[in-house]
Amino acid sequence: MNPSQLFNSFLEEGQILTDKALEQRYHHIWHMDEPLKALCVLLPKNTEQVSKIMKVCYQNDLPVVTHGGLTNLVGSTETIGNEVVISTERLNRIEEIDKASRTITVQSGVILENIHNATEEEGLLFPLNFGARGSAQIGGIVSTNAGGLRVLKYGMTRQLVLGLEAVTVEGTVISSMKKIIKDNSAYDLKQLFIGSEGTLGIITKVILKLEELPKSRNAAFIGFDNYDAVVTFLKYCDSKLAGKLSGFELIWKNSYVQMTSVNESVRPPLPYDYNYYVLIESLGGNQFNDQNEFQNLLEQALEEELILDAVMANSQSDVEWFFRIREDVNNLVDFMEHDQHFDISLPIPYIGSYIEERYNSLRKIKGVNQVYAFGHVADGNIHFMVGKSNLSTELKKRIDHCIYDGLQKIGGSVSAEHGIGLHKKDYLHLCRNEEEINLMRLLKTTMDPKGLLNPRKIL
Amino acid sequence: MNPSQLFNSFLEEGQILTDKALEQRYHHIWHMDEPLKALCVLLPKNTEQVSKIMKVCYQNDLPVVTHGGLTNLVGSTETIGNEVVISTERLNRIEEIDKASRTITVQSGVILENIHNATEEEGLLFPLNFGARGSAQIGGIVSTNAGGLRVLKYGMTRQLVLGLEAVTVEGTVISSMKKIIKDNSAYDLKQLFIGSEGTLGIITKVILKLEELPKSRNAAFIGFDNYDAVVTFLKYCDSKLAGKLSGFELIWKNSYVQMTSVNESVRPPLPYDYNYYVLIESLGGNQFNDQNEFQNLLEQALEEELILDAVMANSQSDVEWFFRIREDVNNLVDFMEHDQHFDISLPIPYIGSYIEERYNSLRKIKGVNQVYAFGHVADGNIHFMVGKSNLSTELKKRIDHCIYDGLQKIGGSVSAEHGIGLHKKDYLHLCRNEEEINLMRLLKTTMDPKGLLNPRKIL
Ligand SMILES: Cc1cc2nc3c(=O)[nH]c(=O)nc-3n(C[C@H](O)[C@H](O)[C@H](O)COP(=O)(O)OP(=O)(O)OC[C@H]3O[C@@H](n4cnc5c(N)ncnc54)[C@H](O)[C@@H]3O)c2cc1C
Ligand SMILES: Cc1cc2nc3c(=O)[nH]c(=O)nc-3n(C[C@H](O)[C@H](O)[C@H](O)COP(=O)(O)OP(=O)(O)OC[C@H]3O[C@@H](n4cnc5c(N)ncnc54)[C@H](O)[C@@H]3O)c2cc1C
Repeated sequence: MNPSQLFNSFLEEGQILTDKALEQRYHHIWHMDEPLKALCVLLPKNTEQVSKIMKVCYQNDLPVVTHGGLTNLVGSTETIGNEVVISTERLNRIEEIDKASRTITVQSGVILENIHNATEEEGLLFPLNFGARGSAQIGGIVSTNAGGLRVLKYGMTRQLVLGLEAVTVEGTVISSMKKIIKDNSAYDLKQLFIGSEGTLGIITKVILKLEELPKSRNAAFIGFDNYDAVVTFLKYCDSKLAGKLSGFELIWKNSYVQMTSVNESVRPPLPYDYNYYVLIESLGGNQFNDQNEFQNLLEQALEEELILDAVMANSQSDVEWFFRIREDVNNLVDFMEHDQHFDISLPIPYIGSYIEERYNSLRKIKGVNQVYAFGHVADGNIHFMVGKSNLSTELKKRIDHCIYDGLQKIGGSVSAEHGIGLHKKDYLHLCRNEEEINLMRLLKTTMDPKGLLNPRKIL
Repeated sequence: MNPSQLFNSFLEEGQILTDKALEQRYHHIWHMDEPLKALCVLLPKNTEQVSKIMKVCYQNDLPVVTHGGLTNLVGSTETIGNEVVISTERLNRIEEIDKASRTITVQSGVILENIHNATEEEGLLFPLNFGARGSAQIGGIVSTNAGGLRVLKYGMTRQLVLGLEAVTVEGTVISSMKKIIKDNSAYDLKQLFIGSEGTLGIITKVILKLEELPKSRNAAFIGFDNYDAVVTFLKYCDSKLAGKLSGFELIWKNSYVQMTSVNESVRPPLPYDYNYYVLIESLGGNQFNDQNEFQNLLEQALEEELILDAVMANSQSDVEWFFRIREDVNNLVDFMEHDQHFDISLPIPYIGSYIEERYNSLRKIKGVNQVYAFGHVADGNIHFMVGKSNLSTELKKRIDHCIYDGLQKIGGSVSAEHGIGLHKKDYLHLCRNEEEINLMRLLKTTMDPKGLLNPRKIL
């Protein structure tokens, strides 16, 4: 089959990539040197074209994989060669910023950073933010229900999507493009598409909720000796800072040491005397008042011996320095032969002991060279970066099992933010039971009876 | 058929109500004098019993209607007589309050006020709050995705549910009872049950997210001449009060006059000089600081001529007085011959003109005596209370159409909070398109192929 013939009645030549052109394409930003295996890559510009593509694929039983910014961390954009790839990169129009409704309407291929820039110009904030902001597209972000650094204050993607338009496997356009905050008119269909990693439909547009741009930003690094004190201080901050607490990131000592000893731009704000380091951030409406309040909170916490040590950012460049420490995982990864990363979710009270146990057992595994833990502790979300000496499947699985196997018992999840994709499929049963998985399969076969949408992923 | 025989192998005698006993039951708290039409009422005490009931009903093709607190406002607990009614009133156990995870685990029949009391004792807040708190049960609340007075700060029910357990029409228990805040492990099944008014499954348990109990509460009434100034002031407050703004309620002049002229306990905080009255509330971490901040905000807004007049609550009893004005709809309804109420959602910028037009056209309808508008303007959610002289279907429909017909064009919804049930079924197509409704039907037939769950409701 020559796929061009199927699509060239409604797509221009430049919108259909095949053969040689595929060599310039890839399935992930970290694998740019591996040419893409696919029948073709299609570059639709609007919803109508996506709908037509899906009609053709449905009629011809062609599997479809959607490519957004290709920054996912679970293999969910991988292909084997028999697929039509729909790339959303030309669905890149910002359609409207409505200042009074505080919404932005975008096509699904708009890059996160472009949304930030456009909204900030209008004095508004789209709060979702994470390292891949320069590449990740809103369609991919919604399809993975991405999280990031400010979930504590603003929620995950699911909470920020007001309206959504998606195309079903049969090519039907489901348009729920409303700007309203509350809508209890029957089933909330957009929930089906959010977080389903392209397996139930293709998102073509969204309306996002915006917030007022904060007028103040304060941050501090804080030292603790034991995990329980971290949890007590989290409650303390949450209560004192009310709705302003926007970040509460925990870094285990050895991670902090590594993160702050690599180069000048990430020197340590606090000495290496503590077992746990917390980076807190607050966003508010008045820099002068909020800074005072923040400082008083820290002083009082020191006085009450809730914390052992604290250093507050004195300027915005200090704030950026603090966040660079937490955000730049290259300072960990660059020193690893090979790396394996994790994104687990667990109830907050268990985190201290669970992570300590993992540290101990991981370090006993032959081939494991480094173990670093850190994460969004206020969301119960911890990341592990494990450095190892080889790429054998056996070693990989031993590490996986070490981190995942205890989660079931404590009601955790193998994926807090990143999704399941291909890489976590084998572990899904550790956090979802048989009845849940059966119901997921029922949804999948209902929405995609031929199994054409992102085959092999998730289930 | 004698339904007792079907259920008495696993339910005790007192858990099966039939015949005479049904005369003491009803389908809504406002219709206690109408005996319930049903085959029987079953009072399960645990999930296993609900599952067994559903298995029997499924085998015998018996329609099932779930009764929670019976406070819904859309007829969604009405029956015609051939149904098995499952009442959740004995599923009333608070299973756990986990202070460290800040969660509460409850069976679905627990009454909202009991959740408030139990969590407040532990210094924690379950923020959902509305007039029917003394009767509404958490299962009904989740099934209607209820809103209320503090959605602006804390979100609707959907955002407050972490874990959920439900029984499908075939009796399978779907248990997603996790305490974690983030979980992107495949499809988020609880979203199916939230807001689906008992048409896709029966909720037996939930885990709710709790917040720190606020340490300060401030409120003020503010006067405006035009709607645009209200919207500007909303943005102003949102920016200045950052995450503390918890309520921003708009009351149209004539509603304010009526609400404050009925008795001593609701005397007017501001004179009758303005066209719009806004009640704002902020919840924070420190009464002294927050009160100062709140007062400064009002003074500055007066100086900048953003607002015409303001009166701040000087004490908690003032705060309660202010809220009594807004909350006690009896001060409106008691003076109506018959009443008809509305709960619409629309983009914030349209609210001023849309409501004014409705006022004008409603007042022209013969038989309409009073029209009152007020609502959660920051959520784009306005309520109408219409007083009328008779109960004719014709008058009812004219009023419905007057309020609903313009919503489609501006992307509004016929239900912001209350759901669709029976009463709004005819208007669903005004805010959801054919493709959306078809997809809803597909979900419904997938989850409930025999159409046994809350028949005739929603779709
Ligand atoms: C440096 C770095 C930091 C990161 N930090 C975070 C973080 O803090 N939090 C977090 O949550 N994630 C994080 N991620 C992961 C990743 O950025 C997110 O998952 C992001 O949301 C993916 O967006 P994307 O456009 O790259 O999607 P892609 O990788 O292109 O696709 C992701 C999935 O969505 C599907 N998809 C894409 N577009 C559509 C569409 N329009 N319709 C339907 N399905 C679609 C794809 O088929 C695939 O299954 C990080 C990644 C990197 C590389
Ligand atoms: C004075 C007053 C003020 C109100 N204010 C508000 C408000 O501000 N905001 C708001 O959103 N609502 C408000 N409501 C409406 C109502 O209180 C809410 O809809 C509430 O959530 C209903 O809860 P309930 O337990 O009474 O449910 P019910 O009325 O018993 O049931 C509601 C629906 O849910 C289904 N259901 C009940 N329990 C279950 C279960 N366990 N599993 C599956 N389905 C179930 C029922 O079949 C029905 O379809 C108000 C009502 C009154 C009377």
